[in-house]
Amino acid sequence: MARSTRMTYFRENIERMGGYMPGHQPVGDVVKLNTNENPYPCSPKVMEAIRAVSEESLRKYPKVHWDDFREVAGKILKVAPESIVCGNGGDEILTMLMRCCCDRDRPLAFPVSTYSLYPVLAQIQDCSTIEVPFNAGGELPDDLFDNKAGLTILCNPNSPSTSLVPVDEIARLAKSLDGVLLIDEAYVDFARWNCLELVRQLDNVATLRSMSKGYSLAGLRFGYCVASEKIVTAMCKVKDSYNLNAITQAAAIAAISDQQHLKQNVAKVIAERERLSQELFKLGFKVPPSDTNFLLAEISAPSAKSIYEKLCEEKIYVRYFDQVGLDDKLRITIGTPHQNNVLFEALINIV
Amino acid sequence: MARSTRMTYFRENIERMGGYMPGHQPVGDVVKLNTNENPYPCSPKVMEAIRAVSEESLRKYPKVHWDDFREVAGKILKVAPESIVCGNGGDEILTMLMRCCCDRDRPLAFPVSTYSLYPVLAQIQDCSTIEVPFNAGGELPDDLFDNKAGLTILCNPNSPSTSLVPVDEIARLAKSLDGVLLIDEAYVDFARWNCLELVRQLDNVATLRSMSKGYSLAGLRFGYCVASEKIVTAMCKVKDSYNLNAITQAAAIAAISDQQHLKQNVAKVIAERERLSQELFKLGFKVPPSDTNFLLAEISAPSAKSIYEKLCEEKIYVRYFDQVGLDDKLRITIGTPHQNNVLFEALINIV
Repeated sequence: MARSTRMTYFRENIERMGGYMPGHQPVGDVVKLNTNENPYPCSPKVMEAIRAVSEESLRKYPKVHWDDFREVAGKILKVAPESIVCGNGGDEILTMLMRCCCDRDRPLAFPVSTYSLYPVLAQIQDCSTIEVPFNAGGELPDDLFDNKAGLTILCNPNSPSTSLVPVDEIARLAKSLDGVLLIDEAYVDFARWNCLELVRQLDNVATLRSMSKGYSLAGLRFGYCVASEKIVTAMCKVKDSYNLNAITQAAAIAAISDQQHLKQNVAKVIAERERLSQELFKLGFKVPPSDTNFLLAEISAPSAKSIYEKLCEEKIYVRYFDQVGLDDKLRITIGTPHQNNVLFEALINIV
Repeated sequence: MARSTRMTYFRENIERMGGYMPGHQPVGDVVKLNTNENPYPCSPKVMEAIRAVSEESLRKYPKVHWDDFREVAGKILKVAPESIVCGNGGDEILTMLMRCCCDRDRPLAFPVSTYSLYPVLAQIQDCSTIEVPFNAGGELPDDLFDNKAGLTILCNPNSPSTSLVPVDEIARLAKSLDGVLLIDEAYVDFARWNCLELVRQLDNVATLRSMSKGYSLAGLRFGYCVASEKIVTAMCKVKDSYNLNAITQAAAIAAISDQQHLKQNVAKVIAERERLSQELFKLGFKVPPSDTNFLLAEISAPSAKSIYEKLCEEKIYVRYFDQVGLDDKLRITIGTPHQNNVLFEALINIV
């Protein structure tokens, strides 16, 4: 009997949704400044750790609670090892918290515009969203305070705005909430400050870190979260039993242990960020100060879309968002000095 | 202001549940026959692939849809590449399907006793379960047919029973259901037949494969699913955008490409399975034929629990389930000839 006459096999929210659209991943000889990867290679110690992985460690199940990473990271971050939860990329941390805190009766709140995955995760979890626009200068909007969400996510520094909210203001937000506040610090390695101290003070606060940006390891899929015991306990209930393989755990330990490499890479990116920002300003772009590894450059004419398309023709990829409030802007990942020069030369001809 | 006076931050189903308990992972010089790992190393080609991973492939985001694995596996399995979904272990495949098919209005059904993760996944997804005991000989129970679940999971061959249901019978089950049927074939590399052909015939059927058992890669976390276009489309909506890192994808391609290594390892395990089965029989255990890489050995006296405890004292670990219907049995993973001999010698003294 054919099955095609049956009704849908899937939940209504899944049928309705379209799914997340990852940034374009062009291959070949291109200048790729569209998905906020780090232009410099990871620490050589990461490669050594990967090559040292044994058949025996692959034959057996990996560590359930990432004991060795927790130990090493706890010392570096000056937090208790047990306050750390590791994920298969920061995205898995987001998913874990969604599953702990959100459902049809418990909405997800976040200020917009921000990481476009958040509303997709809400669709999967079948919860409503409370989306409040950031103030014009990137400050927290009043309506975000005292919201009744199960989970509030603040991307800080934020993408695509590049802005950074002060720690005191985030503490005030956390204290106003009945639910959990996750501070998504995926870009924090490039920022002036971070919110780790809030985790020690407030049991409804979690911070998310990623190795995709600062550590040049987008291909490794490693993120972690620092949070109160309550939050860690709940997250460990919903995670896949063995969510990180043995190689990833070994590589992440090597990466976080090499803080000098991180600092050097970050310093190079920040130096180029400031240079590129000034060059874009000279070309007529409005470029707010950035606490991330990218810039959000605004221009009225020619249109951001036409610039984006012309750059694509020259195999230079930046990110264009076809949505109100962002359609006059380009999000440009900071590349190497050479990549940034190629972009700049192309822009001189276009603008 | 302290937060401790607030109500719970988490969903009620998360508060209620205890979480999955992974099998004990003893370290050091032990005989570890408790978590169904393969006693032999993976293909050397896997290690080569891991060591060949470049900094550049880690710097950038990995393939979203595992294009290269799909291409290679599609040829080997003789299925369309687009019918394959890859996961961070078979467990992630289970989670994806749960999120597609189950919620408060859509239960999860499965015959018991089986993989103890299934009911835990139902708790996380806040759905009820329909649990129907297998018939005494491991056949499908009548009450499993025509059930109204959103998802039905059949572990085949089953753990811990080691039994295998015929393909025709599973086809009859699938046709009786309104929802999706997932055939969890984690142990199928050791079985007489598999259900891949059903995926081609029925659009509500998916099969799950794992590299943890046959391929000796429990530490890699790689599983995949073969399913209809409908099911694949839904699963891709709920998966993490970049759910498998670049190293895992490269290693999995190498593993599935080396079918000769798989066959050799499987043949060795099966030979030992038959030998150990006969030895246990001689000692008074009742051991049904196994289609897996483990045995479920029943004994009335001395008690299975006391045998388990005495083996632990000698650093020989097998799996004991303290539950009705299983508390007179031991689940014993097939080890190397040496490991099996050590176990056998110890059992002679105990029994």
